[in-house]
Amino acid sequence: MDKVTYWNELAAQLSVDSIRSTTAAGSGHPTSSMSASHLAAVLFSDHLRYDPSRPKSLANDRFVLSKGHASPLLYSLYKALGVINDDDLLSLRKMGSPLQGHPAPIPELPWVDVATGSLGQGLPIGLGMALGMKLDQAPGRVWVLLGDSEMAEGSVWEAIQAASYHKLNNLTAILDMNRLGQRGPTMLEWDGSTYAKRASAFGWNVVEIDGHDVGAIDVAYGAAEQSGLPTLIVARTHKGNGVSFIQDKEGFHGVALKPDDAARAIEELGGERNLNVSPLSPAEFKPMNGRLNVDLPVYKDGIPTRKAYGDSLAALAARPDVVVLDAEVGNSTYTEDFGKVAPDRFIQFFIAEQVMIGAAIGLGVVGKTAFAATFGAFLTRAYDFVRMAAVSRANLRLCGSHAGVSIGQDGPSQMALEDLAMMRAVQGSTVLYPADGNSTATLMGQIVDLPGISYIRTTREKTEPLYTEEESFPIGGSKTLQAGEDDRVTLVGAGVTVYESLKAAEALEKEGIKTRVIDAYSVKPIDAATMKQAMADTGLIVVTEDHWIDGGLGDAVLAGLAQDGQPLSGRVIKIGVTEMPGSGAPEELRDWAGISASKIAERVRAALS
Amino acid sequence: MDKVTYWNELAAQLSVDSIRSTTAAGSGHPTSSMSASHLAAVLFSDHLRYDPSRPKSLANDRFVLSKGHASPLLYSLYKALGVINDDDLLSLRKMGSPLQGHPAPIPELPWVDVATGSLGQGLPIGLGMALGMKLDQAPGRVWVLLGDSEMAEGSVWEAIQAASYHKLNNLTAILDMNRLGQRGPTMLEWDGSTYAKRASAFGWNVVEIDGHDVGAIDVAYGAAEQSGLPTLIVARTHKGNGVSFIQDKEGFHGVALKPDDAARAIEELGGERNLNVSPLSPAEFKPMNGRLNVDLPVYKDGIPTRKAYGDSLAALAARPDVVVLDAEVGNSTYTEDFGKVAPDRFIQFFIAEQVMIGAAIGLGVVGKTAFAATFGAFLTRAYDFVRMAAVSRANLRLCGSHAGVSIGQDGPSQMALEDLAMMRAVQGSTVLYPADGNSTATLMGQIVDLPGISYIRTTREKTEPLYTEEESFPIGGSKTLQAGEDDRVTLVGAGVTVYESLKAAEALEKEGIKTRVIDAYSVKPIDAATMKQAMADTGLIVVTEDHWIDGGLGDAVLAGLAQDGQPLSGRVIKIGVTEMPGSGAPEELRDWAGISASKIAERVRAALS
Repeated sequence: MDKVTYWNELAAQLSVDSIRSTTAAGSGHPTSSMSASHLAAVLFSDHLRYDPSRPKSLANDRFVLSKGHASPLLYSLYKALGVINDDDLLSLRKMGSPLQGHPAPIPELPWVDVATGSLGQGLPIGLGMALGMKLDQAPGRVWVLLGDSEMAEGSVWEAIQAASYHKLNNLTAILDMNRLGQRGPTMLEWDGSTYAKRASAFGWNVVEIDGHDVGAIDVAYGAAEQSGLPTLIVARTHKGNGVSFIQDKEGFHGVALKPDDAARAIEELGGERNLNVSPLSPAEFKPMNGRLNVDLPVYKDGIPTRKAYGDSLAALAARPDVVVLDAEVGNSTYTEDFGKVAPDRFIQFFIAEQVMIGAAIGLGVVGKTAFAATFGAFLTRAYDFVRMAAVSRANLRLCGSHAGVSIGQDGPSQMALEDLAMMRAVQGSTVLYPADGNSTATLMGQIVDLPGISYIRTTREKTEPLYTEEESFPIGGSKTLQAGEDDRVTLVGAGVTVYESLKAAEALEKEGIKTRVIDAYSVKPIDAATMKQAMADTGLIVVTEDHWIDGGLGDAVLAGLAQDGQPLSGRVIKIGVTEMPGSGAPEELRDWAGISASKIAERVRAALS
Repeated sequence: MDKVTYWNELAAQLSVDSIRSTTAAGSGHPTSSMSASHLAAVLFSDHLRYDPSRPKSLANDRFVLSKGHASPLLYSLYKALGVINDDDLLSLRKMGSPLQGHPAPIPELPWVDVATGSLGQGLPIGLGMALGMKLDQAPGRVWVLLGDSEMAEGSVWEAIQAASYHKLNNLTAILDMNRLGQRGPTMLEWDGSTYAKRASAFGWNVVEIDGHDVGAIDVAYGAAEQSGLPTLIVARTHKGNGVSFIQDKEGFHGVALKPDDAARAIEELGGERNLNVSPLSPAEFKPMNGRLNVDLPVYKDGIPTRKAYGDSLAALAARPDVVVLDAEVGNSTYTEDFGKVAPDRFIQFFIAEQVMIGAAIGLGVVGKTAFAATFGAFLTRAYDFVRMAAVSRANLRLCGSHAGVSIGQDGPSQMALEDLAMMRAVQGSTVLYPADGNSTATLMGQIVDLPGISYIRTTREKTEPLYTEEESFPIGGSKTLQAGEDDRVTLVGAGVTVYESLKAAEALEKEGIKTRVIDAYSVKPIDAATMKQAMADTGLIVVTEDHWIDGGLGDAVLAGLAQDGQPLSGRVIKIGVTEMPGSGAPEELRDWAGISASKIAERVRAALS
């Protein structure tokens, strides 16, 4: 079979298998798969350098299906690669099948690197992979298949600008311009020249082709491989290509064909086939090794925890796998301290949080240990990426600085007041809020190798040392700072409110009210056992947080007390921010919000009177 | 004084006053204000049509300071307008002053329309204002002052593409290209032609000027006013313009000058001045009136609540103030039902959730009652906009469809599992999750006029009617579906888990376990009194939610029980999703997640054994 015939036959097979699997499932996206089958056939047979028996090899090219709803195409490719069989294919979307409606990198499916299905994420993630390859001088390339609807997402343009800035000529985006979105035509339909003009203005090499002309596709991929710039291939395609009664027709997005229609469609496509595809072998590549022990910083004096975070990153720079990502606030988060010692691994995204987090996920895929930081308030901008990182089973290390009203004069737009709630509601996440320098550094030593999504919240102001470097801070633990047998109340805080709680305790003790104080540096998992003991001992817990009152530390403590259906008792007073702050000095704002030492003490007195 | 002299003098005054106020505050952004003072002087004196005595008038032009950190410039303009005095100006950033570090529309400052300070939001919001003006054929224009760092945010490009698609020639963006960001040079520095090329490729009219040449600024504004397209003015400026020792120098971002330096700087700028500025008068404009009563839909049969949402919107279309925003999923959220009856007020943003929410905020400023909907999972993409909407004191009506694992086969990327936590952690928010059609419609009748940020969560599947149209659903209430004196357990659910709880209760009652069932349709505020009573009566509450276990309904119920520091008692079992789901049928996934009727009943039996 000559190449052109083979490509076309393989493409027809991918379309047929996409129809078969979705019809068997009774749902899914055959037409969105079919528009890209020629693009995929040529890529997998003659351009992608990939060893399917070693999917995690750092020598491989990477393929990211950004239009994740076209998963039937991906699974049809896996069948052609011989890594799944036809029964697997027909298990699509069924309970327990690894072939989910949108691809997810579960253990049974090691060929999927990252979850997709929330549009606009594939290119930011692919960009991270391409950055990691460049750092390692790896031979691979990254190929991202984009849908045209997702070109409306700002995150795509963040990635396009960042790829241009970072000169990632190992990144190719293939735009499957099939003209039709979920509910009708896309914004630009088949106006390929406008896509081309835009990408070109953003510094990309652009090639416009007919996405069903396999020869043109082959030439375009070759041009991308030779380009000194990142390349966008604008491929004009038909949704449902090759089947007369669905091709380029509205009303067939996410619609599986009924068995009769499927049979007709498969006949039009020339019937079932059983072609195999063998990608080109990757080039030889020996990844760097070596994970060193790192001496983390130690503090005798007060320091802002954000600075301890930066110092810790600078120490961790001794590990060549560590990379740090900034969104133009490195002098506020102190990630710049890492940049000073490892400038090549300090990656600037300017003010574009979504691509920063997406790239961190991609860097993880190619073996990097990525840290990303910005103001905690601005991480809200990337929440969809964090949510999807959990679906990707990514190890992601996030830091949000400038926590709470304690930032002071800059006002509410810069105050992280929802970050604990947001990060608690991420599957499998770890949420930490250390109070002083040594606890921050010690926790950083654990975060660096922690699986899943971790979040560390840091404080803008200097805080005094509470701990020596000898103390340990297990994740899921807490620190009881003062306790006695006659304690009548337990004050729980985290970060700045630990200090307010200690000051409140001092005042209360002077009045004869014995007071326990707990530093709940691990907000998730919360130290439920210590909280239950404190309630059993004191009968009153007052939790104070520099955060909205809903969803943060107070709720975590309550959930800890209720854990395992154990009987509740005593009283819990949650103190948090309830009204919209303005500007002011940190101590003024804490007092205004009711989270200051004096306000805590007042609440305790009222509760005990 | 001739015009050029006046403009330059006024600009110098704005720079001087920006220095004075920040030096008095000891923090803030004088240099970022100074780069834009010529741009602001010409705009306010000769182009902006604005009546400062009627800041809310719909006849006015709108000015949005997207680079919110340049608030000293804005407040200096207010002084020149005569709406604040010099003492006010010098209260900048102090506790209790309306002049916050970043502008916020508090009652004392009615000239601010929306909060800014999270970069990349001003243009999406301004776009919403411009859309609203076009809908009403209002005479005004929208002027948005952008910083160059924020051009890296994808949300800016979402707005640029939407403005072009919606042909908003009443929108002008002024780019203060001062080359320096927070921690050094911006991505493009003074490469104005690249900004111009990009915006032009996105369909905008572009004018490049020297941003300190008042004559050129005047001409550019005139060109924008005449253009048939939205216009971007790329203005090359100097940060700290006019003061030799800070102009275009790194290290002066967000740095207030010390008093001595301030005095030198003010001298270089020619000293203090007391010029007034009088904007042009707005054209005559009579806004439409009339808020009609609306008959909301009534259901006798089962219906998906997302469809009841769409039907309700279609009914609310009778009110001319109501507009509905879609991000290319209107056939899934059923906002398309509104589009069918009011196509001119159904606004399409394609897959770009950030600009959709930003525009909803802007539409609210110009008198529209805006609803925006997408999959609940994809609202995470716009969380920063929702957070800032609260700072803006906006009335925003959000809907998230496709809640929880109950969406089934599409898998976790499409499942809203963090939306309740996310929306609870928004200041002053209302979070609703109705179970059936009639409760949805009744709640929609309240949401339409509800102040603040409201969120309604809808379900993909059809659910059977629980209520007649006669029943009321007060916000902050709940519905007790079955209760008796001998109840040994209370099952609390919302949305789909109300039905699972009812089925579990049926099974338990057959076994002799009397069971109370509560529909907690109001997640925030939660009906604390009813929960407390249920605990007092039954001693065991089992809360089940189709949501991550952290931060959602279970935490809300616990917080309700603890409210006001009342003594806790009994047991609370929280049931929610804890592991990452895959694909499957809705009922299979609910059972897998442990939130099905049979799993709820099992948990109750174990707790009572």
